[in-house]
Amino acid sequence: MAERLYRIGALTLTEIPRSHPRYESLLAREHIAEGVRDGITSTQGLIAQGRGEAFDYLIGERTTPAAKAATSAAAAMLLLAKRPALSVNGNVAALIPEGMVELSKALNAPLEVNLFHRTEERVGKIAGLLRSLGAERVLGEDPDETIPGLDHARSKASRGGIYDADVVLIPLEDGDRCEALVRMGKKVIAIDLNPLSRTSRMATVTIVDNIVRAVPNLISFAMELSVTNHRNLQSLIHEYDNRVALRQCVDEIQSHLTKQFR
Amino acid sequence: MAERLYRIGALTLTEIPRSHPRYESLLAREHIAEGVRDGITSTQGLIAQGRGEAFDYLIGERTTPAAKAATSAAAAMLLLAKRPALSVNGNVAALIPEGMVELSKALNAPLEVNLFHRTEERVGKIAGLLRSLGAERVLGEDPDETIPGLDHARSKASRGGIYDADVVLIPLEDGDRCEALVRMGKKVIAIDLNPLSRTSRMATVTIVDNIVRAVPNLISFAMELSVTNHRNLQSLIHEYDNRVALRQCVDEIQSHLTKQFR
Repeated sequence: MAERLYRIGALTLTEIPRSHPRYESLLAREHIAEGVRDGITSTQGLIAQGRGEAFDYLIGERTTPAAKAATSAAAAMLLLAKRPALSVNGNVAALIPEGMVELSKALNAPLEVNLFHRTEERVGKIAGLLRSLGAERVLGEDPDETIPGLDHARSKASRGGIYDADVVLIPLEDGDRCEALVRMGKKVIAIDLNPLSRTSRMATVTIVDNIVRAVPNLISFAMELSVTNHRNLQSLIHEYDNRVALRQCVDEIQSHLTKQFR
Repeated sequence: MAERLYRIGALTLTEIPRSHPRYESLLAREHIAEGVRDGITSTQGLIAQGRGEAFDYLIGERTTPAAKAATSAAAAMLLLAKRPALSVNGNVAALIPEGMVELSKALNAPLEVNLFHRTEERVGKIAGLLRSLGAERVLGEDPDETIPGLDHARSKASRGGIYDADVVLIPLEDGDRCEALVRMGKKVIAIDLNPLSRTSRMATVTIVDNIVRAVPNLISFAMELSVTNHRNLQSLIHEYDNRVALRQCVDEIQSHLTKQFR
């Protein structure tokens, strides 16, 4: 599987020159299209990728200062968690599977496959991909619990994973699911490029950034902050206000838009 | 084919309640996904649809005053054209094939199938769909000319259609192609939800609106303005300034964003 991913990388490199101004964005798009061909990503995932591209374009395809602060608060929250869990869906698995495995090791947190359009085949393929990349704890194939307030197919969750976690990372998640997890009393960290989405507004901490930048940043912060004492981690979290951070993201979009027309 | 489209509509209606706040957007998404299954739309078309959804969301999923003015100038330009032509790609064919056929009749202008990721099979399917919906002049299957400055597969065009048109409507077109048509001295009308795209900036008139709203509006304006004299049509065109109009669209996005955080 790692070989397959390498092969896609190599193929893509011959088609998209590294010098292309939108290289990273085009590469991500290829990864998603490949995910669909491999049965890892749903067709709807392609549309979601397009929406993400548009918002990424509006923040200038870079990690903004507000996103950096949110990522650092998120890393602190995950380090202080008693039972952290990391959710993986089809787009996450197509875009940054190695990064999610690395993050799960850095945090000693399980990965749980958690799909919007759930099929057992797709859950199995994603779990297999993560294990082939070295993941030690992958849940989601045999969910033994349900999250209250969601319809049956979408409510499935696992003990030892998302169901009884105190802090959950949900990259590219929809609003209903985010809200249901918050209602369970969990701290929820979203990665979502749309600062106006229900997911972004409902989450405890929202990283408004492209997942291909946010996950490596989360890993760096987790490493860096792992030697920091609890008090300092807690103050990083206390300083963070999700509403203020989203407002900053919107300001950044507005100032980027204004610059385009000077 | 018309029956198939009706069936999709009916199927979709049972799945998405009309009362859903984002009904039109979800319906469009279903049409694109169906286009992919039918071999009319490319996989890349799904990503493009997602990008469009994001920008539509930012303008409030409505025809803004600036878009309405652009649509009226575009209709005047098409009515005054000596040889208008209307481009149809895979997303246009999936989203609003009947509308494009109706517009081509209202303007007495040919439709030309014009794909970014061209395959002869897809060209044939789209041309067949348009004819099954009553289109009288459909070009693109046997292109006999090339547009200067584009690579071979993307440069194909037809005499009697886009190649020797004086005014071309290019809904959902990419920047390179738009620029090449402008360089040929044509008046180019784009329909593009991203007011910052190269297509939007290069075009003579850019309608920053969802194609499912813009095409019916173009048909209405074409009907309404068909009884107007040339002088009045010309003044509608002269009053239009693409740069000013795009700036208004960006202002509308910014004011919509600001409202979200009140």
